Amino acid sequence: MKKLLLAFCLFATGARAQSTDSVTIRKIYNEILTNSPSYEWLRQLTQQIGPRLSGSAGAQKAVEWSKQLMEKEGFDRVFLQEVMVPHWVRGAKEVAYIQNGKQKITVPIAALGGSVATSPKGVEAQVIEVKSFQELRDLGAEKVKGKIVFFNRPMDPTKLNTFEAYGGAVEQRANGATEAGKLGAVGAIVRSMTTALDDNPHTGSMRYATGVPLIPTASISTNGAELLSKSLKTNANLTFYFKQSCESLPDAKSYNVVGEIKGSEKPDEIIVVGGHLDSWDIGQGAHDDGSGCVQSIDVLRTLKALGIKPKRTLRAVMFMNEENGLRGGVGYADYAKKNNEKHIAAVESDNGGFTPRGFGIVGTAEQRAKVMPWKPLLTPYGLSEIGAGSGGADIGPLAQLGTVLFGFKPDSQRYFDFHHTGIDRFEGVNKRELELGAASMAALVYLLDQHGL
Amino acid sequence: MKKLLLAFCLFATGARAQSTDSVTIRKIYNEILTNSPSYEWLRQLTQQIGPRLSGSAGAQKAVEWSKQLMEKEGFDRVFLQEVMVPHWVRGAKEVAYIQNGKQKITVPIAALGGSVATSPKGVEAQVIEVKSFQELRDLGAEKVKGKIVFFNRPMDPTKLNTFEAYGGAVEQRANGATEAGKLGAVGAIVRSMTTALDDNPHTGSMRYATGVPLIPTASISTNGAELLSKSLKTNANLTFYFKQSCESLPDAKSYNVVGEIKGSEKPDEIIVVGGHLDSWDIGQGAHDDGSGCVQSIDVLRTLKALGIKPKRTLRAVMFMNEENGLRGGVGYADYAKKNNEKHIAAVESDNGGFTPRGFGIVGTAEQRAKVMPWKPLLTPYGLSEIGAGSGGADIGPLAQLGTVLFGFKPDSQRYFDFHHTGIDRFEGVNKRELELGAASMAALVYLLDQHGL
Repeated sequence: MKKLLLAFCLFATGARAQSTDSVTIRKIYNEILTNSPSYEWLRQLTQQIGPRLSGSAGAQKAVEWSKQLMEKEGFDRVFLQEVMVPHWVRGAKEVAYIQNGKQKITVPIAALGGSVATSPKGVEAQVIEVKSFQELRDLGAEKVKGKIVFFNRPMDPTKLNTFEAYGGAVEQRANGATEAGKLGAVGAIVRSMTTALDDNPHTGSMRYATGVPLIPTASISTNGAELLSKSLKTNANLTFYFKQSCESLPDAKSYNVVGEIKGSEKPDEIIVVGGHLDSWDIGQGAHDDGSGCVQSIDVLRTLKALGIKPKRTLRAVMFMNEENGLRGGVGYADYAKKNNEKHIAAVESDNGGFTPRGFGIVGTAEQRAKVMPWKPLLTPYGLSEIGAGSGGADIGPLAQLGTVLFGFKPDSQRYFDFHHTGIDRFEGVNKRELELGAASMAALVYLLDQHGL
Repeated sequence: MKKLLLAFCLFATGARAQSTDSVTIRKIYNEILTNSPSYEWLRQLTQQIGPRLSGSAGAQKAVEWSKQLMEKEGFDRVFLQEVMVPHWVRGAKEVAYIQNGKQKITVPIAALGGSVATSPKGVEAQVIEVKSFQELRDLGAEKVKGKIVFFNRPMDPTKLNTFEAYGGAVEQRANGATEAGKLGAVGAIVRSMTTALDDNPHTGSMRYATGVPLIPTASISTNGAELLSKSLKTNANLTFYFKQSCESLPDAKSYNVVGEIKGSEKPDEIIVVGGHLDSWDIGQGAHDDGSGCVQSIDVLRTLKALGIKPKRTLRAVMFMNEENGLRGGVGYADYAKKNNEKHIAAVESDNGGFTPRGFGIVGTAEQRAKVMPWKPLLTPYGLSEIGAGSGGADIGPLAQLGTVLFGFKPDSQRYFDFHHTGIDRFEGVNKRELELGAASMAALVYLLDQHGL
């Protein structure tokens, strides 16, 4: 009978907790859908500051802006964490064309981040089109030497999750120049990472393996890629010309920006919610990742506005340099380790400001099992996909400290229309969708704070 | 032992069916995500034909275009069903301004479909702002007579499903003029049906109750509504002026357009998939409801392309006049009844061409229970919301014949940014999202055809 009574008491307590949580989560959504300034913040970050590639003046302005914003919001502590970041600059706008007999057709390209420049006159050569590294290797140095390699494997449109399709194609961008350089190619042109057919080249980071010739590499828009491929079928001897003036300058000083609300009961247990402040240089970094930044700040603002005093310490972290180095993410984990900070959980939003679908979790089965009872609290808000998955690049290095990682999962269908392009601008983000993302993250952070992990 | 064996056989058969279904559904998605012409069809319907209000030349062109398209796709039978439709025309572009002392501020309005015109000189009067019909009635005729009533209750932004928020506000548009006219008002201005703050007035249908004075009514953009409300707070005596030249012409002849693939085993059991061909006159009717039309035709095209011979008869129906009369939907059900046709199920897409979330079902608990075993086949494609819900306006009248109705549910967050406005254009629809909708509907129609109801 005692056991039964105990069981009943536990059940009743559990049910009461769920009911309190459910009421609070409703309040969180109401507050954000009614009063959130996140969309206006995003306008400031994207339209007033604009592109924010690591080492740029825009990145520095964004550091100052987010620091001032969190100070104005009255968080308990706002501080900077210094990190040295790569400083790559694009230089003059790239030029590229297909020379097909007497016909010269201009196509849109964008130098890949980290690439070397062409010679000032540009490079022109015949083109070898391949769909995979294996196909390239099978051709061998004899056929590749002196040519421009054209990596044209599209993202698989049949993958429902576009990030999976991206994962299946992005090695061409990251390592294409290395693979082509090994075989004596003079340049590498990569089909843009999107399933859309349009005229927007998608930039993004690449790296050279050590000991391999550094050849220039750029992405070409998907329409440009289709045209080049079609043209090659009728004239295998056509040439491709491109010119780019990008260069890597010495590393620059920059910062993660951290806003904190101190925990009232367990201040030593830290919960991070963040996005990355840097963005590629050719757009405004609205979905990638201005959205994640303003959502993260809005999480803390919202709990404060509702008078919720967190038990644990909450931090909104604006990471620097996710796009081409991850120095901010690595630096943040280093600081945490050095200061013996205990990060129980970290939530990142870096998949766009679209309608929320759920969260991916990186943790042990036991840790995931602790989260599962919260599902009924979140599914009414469209968060049906909660389970093992991806966290986020910036919070990734915290995993080694035992932190459980949560990757915010919005709808993925439109993300690669914008990703790393000139059209990743404020206008592409929908106010309600952005706010629902902030509310989803606030609800999760609230539950993490209340119940721990 | 015999029973056990039977149970095992049934289980094995069930499992095999599920496995076959799962393979076919994967093929349906692959076909559509790789080869669907639906986006190009939508371009033709929205950009080449354009607006298609009932009775207009655009509506007639759309009838011919969709008939020819389905004939070209080689459906077994394509035919027209005549319906007489209301024929309302907007006339010259509306003019409206707030006269606040000496300040005259132009605001964007759109006459509501079915409204009468103002006098040729327009109407100008003081303004009474209300949030509800009750508030208006409490004011009484004395305070309302000779005034323009301004209905300014916003859609509730805290509703997760925006259609619910719409449902909570739309009576102002539908019946505002009647309620205001009863009390002697000279006009009714209604806040646009959207949670967004912008300059796009949202038109839509309204109706006058019999015996009530017919006063002109228009919607005002949400920014315009905010401005008017704010101005009234500082000057309750300001006046509002508007002029519109719309009129209702005699009913016009039009058509539903039906494309059919004959069933191979049970040709007398009919499954309908449809959208509505008509649209409001101020945009291109892209989300509302060009998307539903091209998706429905794509369902039949896809099954045909995959060599799937349906057991039952499948019909893609382009309904006419959903927006301001529902004559097509009513007419279709009348034809079905007159010809003793047995419609087992009808699927409608009229909630926009956004990422699919599920289907609402209108049917008995037993009928819904037959659908539930299909959920595991559909959730991998993001269709997690399957259950009792709304069907669709056009298929609604089929319910009286015992037809089970399915309303396609895409993500609702952006729909009311576009609904009934000048920006409901081709550019607002995303190719992948449109295609995923078509694939969701094709998967459901395939299951309905295979297993019946």
